[in-house]
Amino acid sequence: MTKSSYSVAVIGLGAMGMGAALSCLRAGLTTYGIDLNTAALARLKAAGATAVAQDAGAFAEKLDAVLLLLVNAEQIRSVLFGANGLADKLNKGTALMLSSTISVQEVKEISQKLTEKGLIVLDAPVSGGAAKAASGEITVMAAGSEAAFNKLQPMLTAVAAKVYNIGAEIGLGATVKIIHQLLAGVHIAAAAEAMALAAKAGIPLALMYEIVTHAAGNSWMFENRMKHVVEGDYSPLSMVDIFVKDLGLVTDTAKSLHFPLYLANTAHSMFTAASNAGYGKLDDSAVIKIFNAVSLPQKGE
Amino acid sequence: MTKSSYSVAVIGLGAMGMGAALSCLRAGLTTYGIDLNTAALARLKAAGATAVAQDAGAFAEKLDAVLLLLVNAEQIRSVLFGANGLADKLNKGTALMLSSTISVQEVKEISQKLTEKGLIVLDAPVSGGAAKAASGEITVMAAGSEAAFNKLQPMLTAVAAKVYNIGAEIGLGATVKIIHQLLAGVHIAAAAEAMALAAKAGIPLALMYEIVTHAAGNSWMFENRMKHVVEGDYSPLSMVDIFVKDLGLVTDTAKSLHFPLYLANTAHSMFTAASNAGYGKLDDSAVIKIFNAVSLPQKGE
Repeated sequence: MTKSSYSVAVIGLGAMGMGAALSCLRAGLTTYGIDLNTAALARLKAAGATAVAQDAGAFAEKLDAVLLLLVNAEQIRSVLFGANGLADKLNKGTALMLSSTISVQEVKEISQKLTEKGLIVLDAPVSGGAAKAASGEITVMAAGSEAAFNKLQPMLTAVAAKVYNIGAEIGLGATVKIIHQLLAGVHIAAAAEAMALAAKAGIPLALMYEIVTHAAGNSWMFENRMKHVVEGDYSPLSMVDIFVKDLGLVTDTAKSLHFPLYLANTAHSMFTAASNAGYGKLDDSAVIKIFNAVSLPQKGE
Repeated sequence: MTKSSYSVAVIGLGAMGMGAALSCLRAGLTTYGIDLNTAALARLKAAGATAVAQDAGAFAEKLDAVLLLLVNAEQIRSVLFGANGLADKLNKGTALMLSSTISVQEVKEISQKLTEKGLIVLDAPVSGGAAKAASGEITVMAAGSEAAFNKLQPMLTAVAAKVYNIGAEIGLGATVKIIHQLLAGVHIAAAAEAMALAAKAGIPLALMYEIVTHAAGNSWMFENRMKHVVEGDYSPLSMVDIFVKDLGLVTDTAKSLHFPLYLANTAHSMFTAASNAGYGKLDDSAVIKIFNAVSLPQKGE
């Protein structure tokens, strides 16, 4: 495909970021990749990226758009405003899509700093998992100005199947994503609780998985994550510690709204317990390991 | 369609039972309907049932199979073993499919009594909701003898898209269904918690619904039940009190297995609170009404 002159840098080439970057390439956009992980950089370069680097400084002035898919606000602040920060190197009018799951307060602060430098911001968390990212079919829950939506249109078209415009106010995207994560996190924890109970009751987990995924007890997360449990493979696509963070954002949000959380508080404790038991860097389905005295499938069985 | 000589009675014409009975008719089986609700009987008769009645006694000897879709074990015992009980009127060798959600102990006791009378039993809870029942596509999680599966085959083909054979031991079907209900109940309660938080945060619920159903936070129950919340319509298809019962079976099962339930215990309390607040006979999505000081959509808005 002929390369478009529209230039985009994807910062953070994890499961979601790599998929988004590959989708930009497939859509013919001039694509740059930034990550500290050199293996990820090599993979994206081999797939056709114009350039890859651990720092976007060298091609900052060429960019129309930047997609940030970093883990948390601390990483975003470091990349944009730290020593050798990117925010001062981008041309005025460059659009940044902030797609990490961060708090409303954090996205507002970061957005304000960027806006003061003449940059355009979209508060645009995403969902869909690694497979949807790879196929350019993520869901974007976005808030920002019409100018931000317009400027980012080629990239949004490349990476997303659905782009929801929640409103102009920065922070609405983060709010919707945090509420979404309440569901995602509780569903993983509930899936773990149910599968551990099935193991305890002597029901083969592969059969339990097959039945639930064909019945009304199914969830996107059950179907996606319990496959890892059935296979005994806890190689992380998204880690337990990510949900310690995300459900922490949920509880912070609820506290600020004086709203009682029954299930999400419990699920947050379950992921925190899993992290404290040493499973924080495993796949988030490893939250099932907090249930002792159950026999779970082992990899390669 | 020519009527098959295979004769089946569906006892309990609620949302699931009516759908199953209509599916039997559509498959050409000679179909009888039993319920206390005369409106349900009239509807099934108009659809082509051979006969309908509040009591199956009059045609008990004609039946090859009986599908019981009653609410609880008390109702099953009353129909089968109460005054004028059906169990003594059926021919030996008639097969009964016990599809209510009841405890392992209950299904074992009922099954033993039926077996002693020369009847054949399948421990066969179902899932799928009213729509799948109506289209003959429910999921059956069944345990029982090969003879039971064989004898019930024409009816299973008529009502189900998937029939899982969990094993020969009566009680395994109930166990799997109860674990399934852990997921179903927690998912409804989590959906309610998330949507109430969205309302509190000022996110339009129709938009939140649209986003979640296109993202990884989705569940079968979120998609099915939160439609009722968005429409402000709590007409019961399945009531809050059903989940007070079903999650009660989950907690009983866990207790007997010495298994800790974090989320299901909490969800059980949420449904119980909703019931105590006067919402027990509303649609189970009315569990969202336990969240005060949030503004929910009203019907007809």
